[in-house]
Amino acid sequence: MERPITHIISSRQNPKLKHITALKRSHYRKETGSFIIEGYRELERAVASGKLQFEQVLISPECFLGKNEWSLVSSIGVEIVEVPKEIFEKISYRDRPDGLIAVAKQFAYPKLSASALPSEPLLVVEGVEKPGNAGTIFRTAEGAGFRHIVIADPRVDLFNPNIVRASTGVIFNLHIYQQSIEEVYEFCKSNDRTVIAITPECERSVYDTELTGKTALIFGSEQYGLSEYARAHYDIGCSLPMRGAADSLNLAMSAGIIMYETNRQMMQKATAVSGK
Amino acid sequence: MERPITHIISSRQNPKLKHITALKRSHYRKETGSFIIEGYRELERAVASGKLQFEQVLISPECFLGKNEWSLVSSIGVEIVEVPKEIFEKISYRDRPDGLIAVAKQFAYPKLSASALPSEPLLVVEGVEKPGNAGTIFRTAEGAGFRHIVIADPRVDLFNPNIVRASTGVIFNLHIYQQSIEEVYEFCKSNDRTVIAITPECERSVYDTELTGKTALIFGSEQYGLSEYARAHYDIGCSLPMRGAADSLNLAMSAGIIMYETNRQMMQKATAVSGK
Repeated sequence: MERPITHIISSRQNPKLKHITALKRSHYRKETGSFIIEGYRELERAVASGKLQFEQVLISPECFLGKNEWSLVSSIGVEIVEVPKEIFEKISYRDRPDGLIAVAKQFAYPKLSASALPSEPLLVVEGVEKPGNAGTIFRTAEGAGFRHIVIADPRVDLFNPNIVRASTGVIFNLHIYQQSIEEVYEFCKSNDRTVIAITPECERSVYDTELTGKTALIFGSEQYGLSEYARAHYDIGCSLPMRGAADSLNLAMSAGIIMYETNRQMMQKATAVSGK
Repeated sequence: MERPITHIISSRQNPKLKHITALKRSHYRKETGSFIIEGYRELERAVASGKLQFEQVLISPECFLGKNEWSLVSSIGVEIVEVPKEIFEKISYRDRPDGLIAVAKQFAYPKLSASALPSEPLLVVEGVEKPGNAGTIFRTAEGAGFRHIVIADPRVDLFNPNIVRASTGVIFNLHIYQQSIEEVYEFCKSNDRTVIAITPECERSVYDTELTGKTALIFGSEQYGLSEYARAHYDIGCSLPMRGAADSLNLAMSAGIIMYETNRQMMQKATAVSGK
């Protein structure tokens, strides 16, 4: 295809490049209301979601790994800034940059709404601290078929570039909500949704717990676990069995294992019903 | 308890401190044959394993979080170097240092031996690239009851401090082997161990696959997946079902989910046998 017109920049001191670099910092993101999406796969998913308002795209064609980069950036319809590889590598936050960074406007994450939420399990993560964990949870949720995720009282900015990255861009495919844990519990109570807390204090195994149906599976933060409120008000508490000397698992890992176990229980039920 | 005698250092230029800092670099670790273990939980597990020959311990009592640090460091029986908090924080590779770093001698990871390996599933990770993934796999293996793990043809140094850290020290509790993938396959063939490759190319679901018994579950690397050799010679191939737009999961996540599924299948079998 024909190459779109690009605006070539060869100095790192250019204000557009400084702007993109500064978007790695949380307070600058808050100030400007923008955020960055790096990588082909991430950008493709962001564009496909139709959710985003883009501001500009930074490219370095020497770093492109595939054949569809030009058509992807053209389809976005905003200014394309082109820089040499050496400059792109300095701006990129990846080990192996693939030549694509977009800047988009932040959007508001909604609160839960009964009419929009089907009778399937909901994932709730309270107080998450690490962008890598949040992103990995999104990626695994998409794989396990969890489409609705509440990030309650997060300790991390949901527009952190490492979240987008660790999610491989599926963050734009999911229904993500942001609100307080109290609101989440109230929503569940008034909508007959069973709150299942996953916490090492409970001995009951997740394998002996019906995770499917109209449930909310709740996980606490990396350092503090569930808040006092969340611990005091759940319906069912359970945990993953721990063999050996390990006393806990990484947060994203626990959530991933339990989302896949939920998925397995759903498949098993479907098979039982169909009489296979 | 009585405080052991410590050697107080207040300059970062001290050669002992420079040595510890330099152990973050792979080539310096190779040169010196030493490595570092940071953190109370990690060090406690390292000491309890009885596997290690320690060289020195670096402490900063102002950073201690508990009450047992002094008895832990005394029990090691090597020189204790004490530094002020400001210096410790600069040497530490953690966000929240807890005042303990030990230096120990590296040891050799053995190859698989039929006599030492029980008839339980073996985990094999080929070509792992990221220390965080290797460490998280160890931590989850310990939780899921996998005690024997082969790191085949790794692209990472097994004495990288981030592996020890992400494993929370359970790396010292596990039986870890290091050898080539060809050797692993030959070992499995000559010992009637079924090689189950987990690879997205195979449509068969892990949930329809008997993972328990005398098996070897093989995972490929983050970037390249299984090697050509590994792909050509397995007995059974399967994968995790992927819903939604995600086309794959993070390596450690896949391994963790499948180790826990193996554990679930084992528990289910045990329940069936006991007639419960």
